[in-house]
Amino acid sequence: MDNRPIGVFDSGLGGLTAVKQLIKLAPNESIVFLGDTGRAPYGMKDEETLIQYGKQDAEFLINQDVKMVVAACGTISSVFGKNNINLEAAPFTGVLLPAAVDALKASKTKRIGVIGTAATINSKSFPNTLKSLDSEVEIFDLACPLFVPLVEYGFVTDKDPITILTVERYLQYFKDKNIDTLVLGCTHYPLLTSFISNYMGSEVTLIDAGLSTASFVLDTLKEKNMLSDNQNKGNLQFYVTDSPKNFRTVAHIFLGQDIGDMMEQTVL
Amino acid sequence: MDNRPIGVFDSGLGGLTAVKQLIKLAPNESIVFLGDTGRAPYGMKDEETLIQYGKQDAEFLINQDVKMVVAACGTISSVFGKNNINLEAAPFTGVLLPAAVDALKASKTKRIGVIGTAATINSKSFPNTLKSLDSEVEIFDLACPLFVPLVEYGFVTDKDPITILTVERYLQYFKDKNIDTLVLGCTHYPLLTSFISNYMGSEVTLIDAGLSTASFVLDTLKEKNMLSDNQNKGNLQFYVTDSPKNFRTVAHIFLGQDIGDMMEQTVL
Repeated sequence: MDNRPIGVFDSGLGGLTAVKQLIKLAPNESIVFLGDTGRAPYGMKDEETLIQYGKQDAEFLINQDVKMVVAACGTISSVFGKNNINLEAAPFTGVLLPAAVDALKASKTKRIGVIGTAATINSKSFPNTLKSLDSEVEIFDLACPLFVPLVEYGFVTDKDPITILTVERYLQYFKDKNIDTLVLGCTHYPLLTSFISNYMGSEVTLIDAGLSTASFVLDTLKEKNMLSDNQNKGNLQFYVTDSPKNFRTVAHIFLGQDIGDMMEQTVL
Repeated sequence: MDNRPIGVFDSGLGGLTAVKQLIKLAPNESIVFLGDTGRAPYGMKDEETLIQYGKQDAEFLINQDVKMVVAACGTISSVFGKNNINLEAAPFTGVLLPAAVDALKASKTKRIGVIGTAATINSKSFPNTLKSLDSEVEIFDLACPLFVPLVEYGFVTDKDPITILTVERYLQYFKDKNIDTLVLGCTHYPLLTSFISNYMGSEVTLIDAGLSTASFVLDTLKEKNMLSDNQNKGNLQFYVTDSPKNFRTVAHIFLGQDIGDMMEQTVL
């Protein structure tokens, strides 16, 4: 039993999809979230830069005495994965392994697609992880850099023709690949689920990396006997590196609750 | 006469439109460029964060012993303008005043549109500057946050339907405003000129803030007797805060020359 909070970080917005799932699955767990909004987005930045940012993010959470650190960010998960970066001070996971495990469970044909940011796809971490778990799997991966800004700037309402066209532009790559499973390898992408699933068709299963990761985190804590025995709702605390003002509105939309008095600005 | 370099900074890519114009207008001037690519883009970040970043950028250039500092970035220019931030160590300009002066020269009806990032438009710096120069002018301003990612992720080739739709979505706001001049208040936007001018029609003059600023800088140096008397091509030096790898390709496209051996990575 461990009532310390779970630490979750991301460049910002996307990681909230994982936080939302954690709250839903285990409302009694406390969470400290760090959004590195002052340096967001991460997806186009270089590997060395991202390793530095990810390590600073993790260190901040460890200093908050969290019981586990979660990189709820496809980009950091991928560059950490590629470079075999792990933490010593606390159990750690990114979204890579949880999403890969769920993708392999879902796929019957072993033909799996992966989409993510440029840094995620360049790292080849998803294909390497999937192949390390099942050498017979065939992977088709693709960077979709405009997806994050489409989400962040609100082009995600029903049937927005700009987003429909962008999804078509990128995902046509998969049309002749006969995949039966597609990993949404960036925690922003669940907000595009309806567009992606309309284009790919119902025969392709979408894997939400944020959801996979939330389940994986709770399974890990259970195994280590580190779940909370708190009977009430856990505490939520949000830190951002840009001003909290912009983030507050977004967080409200994601989490369905105002987090104004749970927010603080910090410097990394 | 002053043969020290001109210092130019931006979050990255956009500022190169001003550098390109400076090289074209005064090839004998030396330039030190800083792209804060590790924290880019600036356009959605908060005012206090941006003031801190802009001051660090300027300080870096001053430490390189530049003769003038140019914020080739609509966002920093706007938050600096709103907060009356100037530099003491060197002559300073953003894109605000140069673009405003050119817009007033171009406009006959005194009905002027301004487009820029969210931070630029929220600051109200363009309307305030234009009105301080001519109280009778009417201003219509609009944030176009998806324009920067469209440029950065290469959706700018001829007649890209995604960019055509996005330009229509944003700029329809101006359709009943009867403007005769539109300020491109972000140094990325010149790459969208053909799309914007197709939509707005030839009766609307577009003001390229990067071009206005390059002319303004050389006029200022001339007035202060600080132009270079170098007879040869000036030196170019580029610093970035992310890895130089990604930036090198982009810079090549913008400037028409390889800048590989003129680049260095720095930390702010």
